[in-house]
Amino acid sequence: MTETGVLAPAGFVAGGTASGIKPGSVADLAIVATADRRAVPAAGVFTTNLACAAPVQVSRAHLANGEAAAIVLSSGNANAATGDQGRADATRMTELTGTGLGCAAEDVLVCSTGLIGYFMPMAALESGIPALCADLNGGAAAADAILTTDTVRKEAVATVGAGPGLVGGMAKGAAMLAPAMATMLATLTTDVQVAPDVLRVALSTAVATTFNRLLVDGSTSTNDTVLVLASGASGVSISSRAEVHAFTDAVTDVCGSLAEQMARDAEGATKFVRIIVNGAHTSEEAHRAARCVAGSQLVQCSFNGEDPYWGRILSELGASGAMFDPEAVTISYNGTTACRNGIDAGTDAATLAEVMAEPEIEVVCDLDAGQGTATMLFTDLSHAYIDENRGTS
Amino acid sequence: MTETGVLAPAGFVAGGTASGIKPGSVADLAIVATADRRAVPAAGVFTTNLACAAPVQVSRAHLANGEAAAIVLSSGNANAATGDQGRADATRMTELTGTGLGCAAEDVLVCSTGLIGYFMPMAALESGIPALCADLNGGAAAADAILTTDTVRKEAVATVGAGPGLVGGMAKGAAMLAPAMATMLATLTTDVQVAPDVLRVALSTAVATTFNRLLVDGSTSTNDTVLVLASGASGVSISSRAEVHAFTDAVTDVCGSLAEQMARDAEGATKFVRIIVNGAHTSEEAHRAARCVAGSQLVQCSFNGEDPYWGRILSELGASGAMFDPEAVTISYNGTTACRNGIDAGTDAATLAEVMAEPEIEVVCDLDAGQGTATMLFTDLSHAYIDENRGTS
Repeated sequence: MTETGVLAPAGFVAGGTASGIKPGSVADLAIVATADRRAVPAAGVFTTNLACAAPVQVSRAHLANGEAAAIVLSSGNANAATGDQGRADATRMTELTGTGLGCAAEDVLVCSTGLIGYFMPMAALESGIPALCADLNGGAAAADAILTTDTVRKEAVATVGAGPGLVGGMAKGAAMLAPAMATMLATLTTDVQVAPDVLRVALSTAVATTFNRLLVDGSTSTNDTVLVLASGASGVSISSRAEVHAFTDAVTDVCGSLAEQMARDAEGATKFVRIIVNGAHTSEEAHRAARCVAGSQLVQCSFNGEDPYWGRILSELGASGAMFDPEAVTISYNGTTACRNGIDAGTDAATLAEVMAEPEIEVVCDLDAGQGTATMLFTDLSHAYIDENRGTS
Repeated sequence: MTETGVLAPAGFVAGGTASGIKPGSVADLAIVATADRRAVPAAGVFTTNLACAAPVQVSRAHLANGEAAAIVLSSGNANAATGDQGRADATRMTELTGTGLGCAAEDVLVCSTGLIGYFMPMAALESGIPALCADLNGGAAAADAILTTDTVRKEAVATVGAGPGLVGGMAKGAAMLAPAMATMLATLTTDVQVAPDVLRVALSTAVATTFNRLLVDGSTSTNDTVLVLASGASGVSISSRAEVHAFTDAVTDVCGSLAEQMARDAEGATKFVRIIVNGAHTSEEAHRAARCVAGSQLVQCSFNGEDPYWGRILSELGASGAMFDPEAVTISYNGTTACRNGIDAGTDAATLAEVMAEPEIEVVCDLDAGQGTATMLFTDLSHAYIDENRGTS
């Protein structure tokens, strides 16, 4: 079988199972580990939320030495807003995994995703984790077990430069997409030999232009976590500047693919929108402007209604804090200009209606104020989003 | 007839009519003016949006001397993103009003609300404004003519201190509430004698704790405008510190009442929510935290579903940038504590369900980090909000 996710790079094992966190024998527990249970260079990017979940706190501590041997991930319960009990439970999950796999608990990282404010059902994990450690049934099973309201498995692989080094990954696209579960998790693996500090910088760089450019509702969850383990099993070494660039590109490709898969699988969303802001004074201002448009409920509603209401986009650009001349702005939908010099471009309604009916729309805003540029992915706001998030049960 | 809005203070005339901006003889044009057409102290607070509408630009210029004699307001078209033509049209509206009333065009302020990106139908206004000037049919007609998707007229009156000075006002609650029209307008009058700079500070102070504490979708429109005219007709002079405080309180009462009326008339909203953040390190941080919760689509969805999902509120507090210990936070709904010390308070579900079914809910979050406090008003996110904003026609 050709591996399409975390097992594509050499030197890893993985598996997933239904432990009983979720009702009805739905897969809810995954493990990714080094094949020889050796601690290897590892890095993580965690939520900036002050009220971060217990597994985030435990993983941060276990990552302090820049190494890890395994990651245990659970879905259905976020283990967030659970205080001392939550930290004890997350720590216990690393102990069970360490015992089951034969590595130190301090070398195990832990991620959870699901509802906030409920204690973990530890009885399920006391039996589920040892059982999974004894039957690591593959990368696809692992990728399935971290899903919540996602409808499709999310995996990606990229080659480092000309190869043979590889980067693989899996993710669940709740996060800002199907946010009843309120978390985004991604786990990457690579078989290159790379120092922990280089790995950390590569991951941070990749996340900044991928997961952090995806917005559906603007909420920063308690559990967002992206982790990477580097087995070194390919024998490919990453140390020169060119090698680091090639490696960072591969990590960015995997993160970018997973982020796009999240946006395309957004529950309730009917439109996949990429907004590109060009011509801003700085790229920071371009990003601020793009984020303001992407996060606007009004703009999201317009896309839901296939309405080419560029006035709302101009209004959000103007409210973003970016500095530019509103009467120099151009806005287009999939290449069709709707606004030129800040006023209606006179494009006929039928042409715009045809463009807006497409499932994927690229909005380009040119601010004519400099060279700054930024891209964000977002979706429309639909009845189904509300239905998904009205209740927790 | 007892006046309940802008005509409650002495020294003003007002009226409203259907000029033809909106189809179907719906009222869409209003005027408020001093009874003797004299320019009096006036002040305004305008949108901070860089892409501000033409009437905002014209009104700002006409207010530079701190005086005005009249305000002309139209609904149905925002005259925003209309460039030079838009500025010429807004200026023409002040000329028509000045000619019709017998005052200088430079003493006329202009406000418009409605769709962004369309030129004003000036033919309708060329005949409508003179006709309205000749038949100023009262404050209620004026208050009706500025409404868009509002379902009820919004007026308020407050007494300055022990009287007899009065402050009156009218508003339309589109803004963040029924944002297809994308604007919030309010016009206040007072019959006290007050200097322009005192008037300006009083209005800014009042707006900061009323209109600026109301949030439904977080969008800052191109047209938001709050104006006040002071006729002096009551003979009550505002100059001592105590008088200024009493006057500011009265202006704040009127603005607060109008803001509440907007929230209660929010299209599609089924819940009126007041969030109070106490115990923040500073009041600025309390405001930031309250705004982050109020602006959260996820929190808004929970209220739509009557779900006491305090975990989302804690998550938004944690993401807000305010500094506090998440494990010291208490969260209550209408006095019923749902979260204590950052974890579930153990309140039974039936009690919380009863609370969440109420149409008005006060959420109190205590951060236990200081004395800072802030309040925001918001509403739930409903299917009707989306339906209202999917299209422009």
